[in-house]
Amino acid sequence: MEKSLVTYYPIKQQLLWKENEIAISGKPYTQFFCRHLTIPVDLIGSTQYGPLSQEKTFPPTRENLNRLFDDLPKFPRAVYGVADDGDNGMTTFNVTRHFLPGVSVKMMEWWFLWHQIEKERYFLWFPYAHIDNKVADPDRLSNSQLTYAERLYGNPNHITEYIGDTVLDAVIHFTDPVQLGLDKALLEKHNLTFSASGWAASFDRPDIPNTLMLHIGRDVSDGFELYSCYFIGAHKAWSAVSGIERGGERAVAEAKAAGVNRETLEAVSYEMAVHDMTEFTQLGHILPELYRRFGN
Amino acid sequence: MEKSLVTYYPIKQQLLWKENEIAISGKPYTQFFCRHLTIPVDLIGSTQYGPLSQEKTFPPTRENLNRLFDDLPKFPRAVYGVADDGDNGMTTFNVTRHFLPGVSVKMMEWWFLWHQIEKERYFLWFPYAHIDNKVADPDRLSNSQLTYAERLYGNPNHITEYIGDTVLDAVIHFTDPVQLGLDKALLEKHNLTFSASGWAASFDRPDIPNTLMLHIGRDVSDGFELYSCYFIGAHKAWSAVSGIERGGERAVAEAKAAGVNRETLEAVSYEMAVHDMTEFTQLGHILPELYRRFGN
Repeated sequence: MEKSLVTYYPIKQQLLWKENEIAISGKPYTQFFCRHLTIPVDLIGSTQYGPLSQEKTFPPTRENLNRLFDDLPKFPRAVYGVADDGDNGMTTFNVTRHFLPGVSVKMMEWWFLWHQIEKERYFLWFPYAHIDNKVADPDRLSNSQLTYAERLYGNPNHITEYIGDTVLDAVIHFTDPVQLGLDKALLEKHNLTFSASGWAASFDRPDIPNTLMLHIGRDVSDGFELYSCYFIGAHKAWSAVSGIERGGERAVAEAKAAGVNRETLEAVSYEMAVHDMTEFTQLGHILPELYRRFGN
Repeated sequence: MEKSLVTYYPIKQQLLWKENEIAISGKPYTQFFCRHLTIPVDLIGSTQYGPLSQEKTFPPTRENLNRLFDDLPKFPRAVYGVADDGDNGMTTFNVTRHFLPGVSVKMMEWWFLWHQIEKERYFLWFPYAHIDNKVADPDRLSNSQLTYAERLYGNPNHITEYIGDTVLDAVIHFTDPVQLGLDKALLEKHNLTFSASGWAASFDRPDIPNTLMLHIGRDVSDGFELYSCYFIGAHKAWSAVSGIERGGERAVAEAKAAGVNRETLEAVSYEMAVHDMTEFTQLGHILPELYRRFGN
């Protein structure tokens, strides 16, 4: 799998890398804090030809999501754009299929439980863009007597990171993918046993869901397949997804009042695509050895 | 020489590529209009560690420029930053050393005379970023009875292009490098026989010089060495460089009044570095075959 060096980092990210390098020194895992990040060549291509046309996108309804995950061979490689669902809302349309050689579901689950305990661990994932990370209940997250779901779900993760040169200050609510709308039978049929999915809101507006994020994956013979989506913006379906009464409706009304439009969301979507390609490639790069060293 | 695909294009550049692809169709040189551009890996590295610290930069005075070009082995590979010269002005500090395998001075001179005749030729150089190009006197530029200097100098080139996602609408005045401040003896000593250097101004402010650009080069055994600098901003030395009385002083006063500062120039400088690395790598990639096909 041919890879290219990432050729562009906003200056703020370059400066953050230097700060993070100092902050992480002395940690037992500093060797996994990298300077030169890469992206597989075949992943880059489809993100450089403008946003997807409207007819190739769809809004994040339950029906659409299940259709997407039921035809994995057609799951897009890496695309970005905007899904305009009229009065129901408008979101980014970010869909990406990663392959992480030598990685497993077990390693990925370990990573999502392990990295949230210290912000410096979070740095390893994207050394240029990750600023801070705090989980609501670290004891529960670390409690090996509990299941993955018991440790991760309902245990909000406050993250701060650059998406492009903009700081995202958000709370991720990792949630069972079935609660997010995916059929249990479908996930089982395709052996999609991994999930680190959820909804998110801005830190200062916790009751307005503004993101649906799906990271669903499975073991294959030589590694791990990850199927990722980000829908960022506002959609009425997110009342049910978040469990916040009329949260989706309020999100749609506020986005409209704030003047969020296709152009602003396209910009977010492209930056998110670059961010996602960079960070999951990097995670795949470090995870096998990181897990071997710290996985027990 | 290992190369990486360019991993990031602003959306506006992605859309321009598609427009340019349509505009260039039917031209005899469309095969040289590329989609996948690259940058040598060793060129990228030093542009991703934040702007140069102040003490590693210098303002574009005659003395500094001659010192820079007299020690070519120490000519920086690719750096960006800001040179703050106090009351004398503040400029970007972009210095880059390119090596173009299989290219020669002859080809480079041909390119600078040939590409300005049609905007679609200009597209080949940077298909994502070049918008338009017009030379004041195309007959003189094309007149093979005249020397390179007679055709190029004093024949302003109006260019429109994206630097990052910002449109630059400028007029380049290609000028003898000796008039720009480089010693003739020094250029001869190092066999630096190529130049496509000059000063520039915004199209709508032709009397305010805002850029000094040096592209100086020479043949070596297996290709062409290009030594490039961009100083963008304002400097008092540019009255002499441009031949505009008090042009440099006015540029400095206007930049100050407009609030141009280190941060704004650092952003320009980084985008310029990425632009320069991309376009000269691409020119080197297409030029040998383009010259073979159209050079006579």
